[in-house]
Amino acid sequence: MELELLDKILPALHSNSSVLTGPGDDCAVVGFSGKKLLFSTDQVIENIHFSSDTAPERAGAKLVKRNLSDIAAMGGTPLWMMLSIANGNRSVQWVENFVAGVEKTARQYNVPVIGGDIAKLASDGFLASISITGEAQNPILRSTARPGDIIYITGLIGNSFYSEHHLDFIPHLQEGAFLANYANSMMDISDGLLLDASRMAKASIVDFVINPDAVPLRENAAIPQALCDGEDYGLLLTCSPDIDLPELYRLQRFSTPLTAIGTVRSGSGKVINFSDNKLFQLEHIGYEH
Amino acid sequence: MELELLDKILPALHSNSSVLTGPGDDCAVVGFSGKKLLFSTDQVIENIHFSSDTAPERAGAKLVKRNLSDIAAMGGTPLWMMLSIANGNRSVQWVENFVAGVEKTARQYNVPVIGGDIAKLASDGFLASISITGEAQNPILRSTARPGDIIYITGLIGNSFYSEHHLDFIPHLQEGAFLANYANSMMDISDGLLLDASRMAKASIVDFVINPDAVPLRENAAIPQALCDGEDYGLLLTCSPDIDLPELYRLQRFSTPLTAIGTVRSGSGKVINFSDNKLFQLEHIGYEH
Repeated sequence: MELELLDKILPALHSNSSVLTGPGDDCAVVGFSGKKLLFSTDQVIENIHFSSDTAPERAGAKLVKRNLSDIAAMGGTPLWMMLSIANGNRSVQWVENFVAGVEKTARQYNVPVIGGDIAKLASDGFLASISITGEAQNPILRSTARPGDIIYITGLIGNSFYSEHHLDFIPHLQEGAFLANYANSMMDISDGLLLDASRMAKASIVDFVINPDAVPLRENAAIPQALCDGEDYGLLLTCSPDIDLPELYRLQRFSTPLTAIGTVRSGSGKVINFSDNKLFQLEHIGYEH
Repeated sequence: MELELLDKILPALHSNSSVLTGPGDDCAVVGFSGKKLLFSTDQVIENIHFSSDTAPERAGAKLVKRNLSDIAAMGGTPLWMMLSIANGNRSVQWVENFVAGVEKTARQYNVPVIGGDIAKLASDGFLASISITGEAQNPILRSTARPGDIIYITGLIGNSFYSEHHLDFIPHLQEGAFLANYANSMMDISDGLLLDASRMAKASIVDFVINPDAVPLRENAAIPQALCDGEDYGLLLTCSPDIDLPELYRLQRFSTPLTAIGTVRSGSGKVINFSDNKLFQLEHIGYEH
C-alpha cells in the first residue's frame, strides 16, 4: 500500500525553480547560493524497523545511519540533522538511551543534530525521524543509468535481519563520494536489490540485466531470497564500460567489495534475469520500510 | 515530562563550527556558503494536535503552518520542507487528503515539499512531521532580550482550541520579517504566553514584567486562562524603547495587531505580574505540544 501511495502523491507536489531534483530520488537536490544541497528524511518505528527488545542505542544509531546512507547514495557529504521523536510508553531512560545512540553516531560522522522536537504519542509505541541535509558538487541520481553501463553494487546482499546487519551496518559514505566521480547513476539498496534495481531501471527508462550468480552474499544468505531481503544499505550504481571502475576502486583500499552484477540495456524499466533472459519472477520483490 | 527531557538532552548534542545557534531556539541557525540557513521541525499527532474528527486537510495545513511559524519567529523566509508520515489505521483516502492539505498550504506560501517518507505505524493512529529550512540575513533569537526593552506580541491570545484558531491561524511571516529589522529578541507563542515568556526570559537571563490587563484577547478568551492556553502562534518580541515600533508597524498596514504588554528588566529569568509585582502563580503555565 505505502509505496503506491507515495508514488501517487509525491510527483504532484508543488515545486519551484530552486528545486533541481524533487521527490523520488534518495535525496532531493536544491540550488542555494551557488551550491547544491541534499535533503532526505527517514524514520525508525518500533516493531517495524527495530523490535521491542532492540537496545535503544542501536535503534538510534540505525536511524542516523539510514539517513547517512541516503546522502552516500548521491555521492554527498552529510552536514546537519534534525531529530523528531514521538513517544508513547517508553521510559525517559529508554528515550535518553535512544538519543545517546543518535548522538554517538552523529559525533562519529561529525554531523550535528542541530534541533528537534519531542512529542507525546497518543498510543503505545515509539518512533523517530531524522531529516538530514548534505551537500554534493555533482549529485548522482537514479534516473541517469545509460544503456551499455555495467551495474555494480558495494557490499554484500541478504540476511540483513537475522545477521543484525540492519542495525550494525556502516553507511558507504566514502565509497559513494569516490564512486560519484565515475558513476552515471547511483542509489542505496534499502528495500531489496531487485526492488531497488527496478526503481532505478524505471527512473532511467532502461532495462537491467542482473546475473544472480554474481551477487555477493552475506553469510547465511541464499538466492533468491537475498535479492529481496532489504536493509542491505550498500550502493547500487551503473558506470560506463569504458571506465575500469573495479581497478580504480581497488586502489582506494575500501574495506567493502565492489562487484559487477549485470548490464544496462535499452528498455522500459524491466529487471531481467541473466540466467534465463526472463523477468525476475519472485513473489515479493522487495521489502518496504 | 517531555519538556524537561528536551531540556536535558538537547544542549548536550554534538556541534561543530557551522552551527551558529543550536537546539533551544525556534530554529537552528547554520552558516553555509556565506548565508544563514534556518532549520526547524514540528509534528502533528492524532488526538494530541488534532482530534480524530478533524478534517485531514486542516490537520495537514496545521502541520505546515506550525513550521512556518517557527521561521517567522526568527524573521526568516521559508525555503523548503521535508514531510514524514507514519500511518497506523487511516485510509489511503484520508492520508491523501492530509497530504492535499499540506500541499495546498505549501503552494500558498511557495514553500515546496521536496521529499518525504511514508511508513507504517505498528499501532493505531497517525502522525506526521515536517522539517523546514529557511533563510534569514539577521535571525532574531530568543536569548537576546535586553533590560529596558518593551515586550510586544502580535495577534491575540487565548481560546485557541475552541475557536479552532489552532487549525485556522495564519503564521506571522511578513510581520516577523518586518519586525526582525527592529527587535532585539523574538519567538513564536506556541505553548502559552507565560510559558513562552518564561523561556525567553530564561534564555536572555532577564526578568519579564507583563501586564495581564494589556494582553489582547481572542473572542471568548479570559484571563488568566488565556495566558496559558497555547497554540496562539503570534510572535513575542522585545524592542528598545527608543524605537517607536507601534508607529513603524502601523505604517505597514498588517492585519494583525501589535500590542505592548510589558517591559524587560535585569533579572534571572522570572516572569512577573505587573499588577502586583509578584511572580505569576498559575497552576499550569503553558500547554506543551
